[in-house]
Amino acid sequence: MIIDKLIDAIKRTDNPSVVGLDTCLDYLPEEMLAKVKTLKDAGEQIFEFNKNIIDKICDVVPAVKVQVAYYEMYGYEGMKAFEQTIRYAREKGMLVIADVKRNDIGSTAGCYSKAYLSGTNVNGQNIIPFESDFITVNGYLGSDGIIPFTKDCEANEKGLFILVKTSNPTSGELQDKKLENGNTIYEEMSDLVAKWGESTIGKYGYSSVGAVVGATHREQAEIIRKRNPHVFFLIPGYGAQGGKAEDLAVCFENGLGGIVNSSRGILCAYRKEQYKGMDYAEAAYQASIDMRDDLNRAIKK
Amino acid sequence: MIIDKLIDAIKRTDNPSVVGLDTCLDYLPEEMLAKVKTLKDAGEQIFEFNKNIIDKICDVVPAVKVQVAYYEMYGYEGMKAFEQTIRYAREKGMLVIADVKRNDIGSTAGCYSKAYLSGTNVNGQNIIPFESDFITVNGYLGSDGIIPFTKDCEANEKGLFILVKTSNPTSGELQDKKLENGNTIYEEMSDLVAKWGESTIGKYGYSSVGAVVGATHREQAEIIRKRNPHVFFLIPGYGAQGGKAEDLAVCFENGLGGIVNSSRGILCAYRKEQYKGMDYAEAAYQASIDMRDDLNRAIKK
Repeated sequence: MIIDKLIDAIKRTDNPSVVGLDTCLDYLPEEMLAKVKTLKDAGEQIFEFNKNIIDKICDVVPAVKVQVAYYEMYGYEGMKAFEQTIRYAREKGMLVIADVKRNDIGSTAGCYSKAYLSGTNVNGQNIIPFESDFITVNGYLGSDGIIPFTKDCEANEKGLFILVKTSNPTSGELQDKKLENGNTIYEEMSDLVAKWGESTIGKYGYSSVGAVVGATHREQAEIIRKRNPHVFFLIPGYGAQGGKAEDLAVCFENGLGGIVNSSRGILCAYRKEQYKGMDYAEAAYQASIDMRDDLNRAIKK
Repeated sequence: MIIDKLIDAIKRTDNPSVVGLDTCLDYLPEEMLAKVKTLKDAGEQIFEFNKNIIDKICDVVPAVKVQVAYYEMYGYEGMKAFEQTIRYAREKGMLVIADVKRNDIGSTAGCYSKAYLSGTNVNGQNIIPFESDFITVNGYLGSDGIIPFTKDCEANEKGLFILVKTSNPTSGELQDKKLENGNTIYEEMSDLVAKWGESTIGKYGYSSVGAVVGATHREQAEIIRKRNPHVFFLIPGYGAQGGKAEDLAVCFENGLGGIVNSSRGILCAYRKEQYKGMDYAEAAYQASIDMRDDLNRAIKK
């Protein structure tokens, strides 16, 4: 079960966090940005930046989350950097969450699943171009848009995080609405996630089919945690978005239950006063350590 | 307004349909498939296939819908074919709907929007790598995940189709659920779409922010049509998925109101008995004409 591997990695590093490689040109130091004249250069420099950060953090952070939007905006050259980043992080022993939030009808969901989880047949060879350990998906289409992914997860030891309660300010506009049956939409979605994950519950009691639950919505996170104890959380919203360690502690029980993401706070640490004098990779390493300690302080209390 | 351009193109061609270029290796004729040994070959042959179909249909079909999942599954070489396909269709005067169903929090939605609608700054130059006229998006995250797109639509004469009632069999699992206020979730989403599109209503009374409404759910389509008369529909599910012209006619008023997609039915027409002896591009052309006539017969009744 991939969820067991993730939890083992969290335990080994004593670090319930994931570094978000949402790398865009704005985050690069001036000397790297100066080398960028074309989309191809952009992809190359972004991969170089990611590679140096991965080299520094791979022993102290269990996983990276790679947000594909930041690569798509540089076209297929950006997608090449996305592929290289994912492959490099896995080679260095990190688990990779491809944050792609894909969703579609069954046959098309199957194509996305091939791209990230199970592979496509080219001349008799099975190739998984963007092979990841987990991907994020959006469940608005219901079961037949999700089952192609869960099937591939079962067959290939992969996992999902499905959007339940997202970290953005207006996520309640739809997700917090109450249904006739008394549930909110996010509760309904959380129950679906629990159902979709029933067959991939591992040795720690958590399923390889998890939920995205924002650190910025403490009350809802607590409700989901109690409602669906087998669902593991991917928790965005810490740091730059305003989520605090104290708030997201409700997602955890006995130190387990979720993995917390920080992107900008790590990638751009070298611009902060407290990491002054460090290069971007050193600053990312130190910021990762500081994040780990901040989270453990709150979670293990 | 891009919606006016789309409706003008529908009127000019007397054709309310869009051809879905969901091209995968399985759809290629044997002699093309034989040339594919690598992902790079796959991308090249898929673009070649699309190009020949576009050349044939560009005068009789107003738009193509390019489903990105079918390109992602061939990695960044597939994404190159996606980019080439979109660019070629626009060069030939067709409107392009990139069917990407993207969704994320505001800052990340902004990156997706740069990729498809507004462009990214590289060395002082604005580049829109996957420039499209419309994209599909998923509104589960609420307003602040959609507004980055609608802003770019207003500024760059682009459009959206937001998932409301999808064509897949289990779309009702979430979308048909009733809220406390008496609305179903798809009605609630439809009202949000109408609100997000208020500022981009064009000369025909339709907004550049439209809805995805499946041809396979006649009852719900009729409800949405009456509820939100300014919302233009992208209608998947015709043909291979089982939607019939008679059913989807409820989406139209005075011959306007939506554009109907067919993918496999056109791309793989050359394998059908009725188009025997034709090559794939000729068969696609003839199937497009037949689809146009079938739709007009039902819509204009």
